[in-house]
Amino acid sequence: MDQKAIQDYYPAEISQCYGCGRLNEHGLQLKSRWDGQEMVAIFRPQAYHCGISGFVYGGLIASLIDCHAMGTASAASYRAENRAPDTDPPFRFVTGSLQVRYVRPTPLGPPLEVRARVKEIKGRKVTVGVTLSVQGRICAKGEVVAVQMPDHMMPGKENNAGGGE
Amino acid sequence: MDQKAIQDYYPAEISQCYGCGRLNEHGLQLKSRWDGQEMVAIFRPQAYHCGISGFVYGGLIASLIDCHAMGTASAASYRAENRAPDTDPPFRFVTGSLQVRYVRPTPLGPPLEVRARVKEIKGRKVTVGVTLSVQGRICAKGEVVAVQMPDHMMPGKENNAGGGE
Repeated sequence: MDQKAIQDYYPAEISQCYGCGRLNEHGLQLKSRWDGQEMVAIFRPQAYHCGISGFVYGGLIASLIDCHAMGTASAASYRAENRAPDTDPPFRFVTGSLQVRYVRPTPLGPPLEVRARVKEIKGRKVTVGVTLSVQGRICAKGEVVAVQMPDHMMPGKENNAGGGE
Repeated sequence: MDQKAIQDYYPAEISQCYGCGRLNEHGLQLKSRWDGQEMVAIFRPQAYHCGISGFVYGGLIASLIDCHAMGTASAASYRAENRAPDTDPPFRFVTGSLQVRYVRPTPLGPPLEVRARVKEIKGRKVTVGVTLSVQGRICAKGEVVAVQMPDHMMPGKENNAGGGE
């Protein structure tokens, strides 16, 4: 797992994401890499990322699952076409829907391991299954539908924001 | 809507939550208040809370929906018993599951209005429906199952963390 993270292939104009943008200095800077047929990301939460004292905040868990699934959708789309993530045309995704089931309380302290696998690629949608584990124990499960980014969301076209109805 | 927020009734030992704890100085400090039969919270995102430039980060949206739903479950449980939130026995909830559907891109800039309504109270579970709007337009919809906090999660009992299987 020493290869470059998928997020490090994203061009600068889409690298501001709070969850995984390498250029967002306030953000979480999640990094997702291939490990066989799965993508994996390791995240070390801060002490202030708690919900109830001693446990990881559920919103952080949802955030990590969300960004890791977007990265997985992107990486898998390139892989399906047997080409590198820095080749054109680009695959950029946004979240269509996010489901998280909190299987058990997530202890705050050890690194969080987030693993994802593509369940389906269908047109512009990719469905991704995700687990979040601590020390080998699954604490949350997610299913995320990633949708290829509509043109009006591309940076520089913000005036069309919200026009997707 | 000038009444005290439900989160300001939470005792100090459960007020560290990153999303809504009044004692977490790094956190979002969401405040949820009654407005008729709904609970409402207004949140002003920072510039760094972006996903794609110009749009709100989906993980932040999930976080706000999560915490607002927990506050709603708690407030509604007291209301169902016709008593104030600072009376015993306390109602404390954790997230069982979270679903978010991103209806349209959420423009980053104006305040976010989060509204929630209880759909069902059944035993220890409360199901809450949530919308997140910008300038009157719904951008995301959520459904959250809140579960009364198990005893082993109460601060001071962290040694039992993760023993819920």
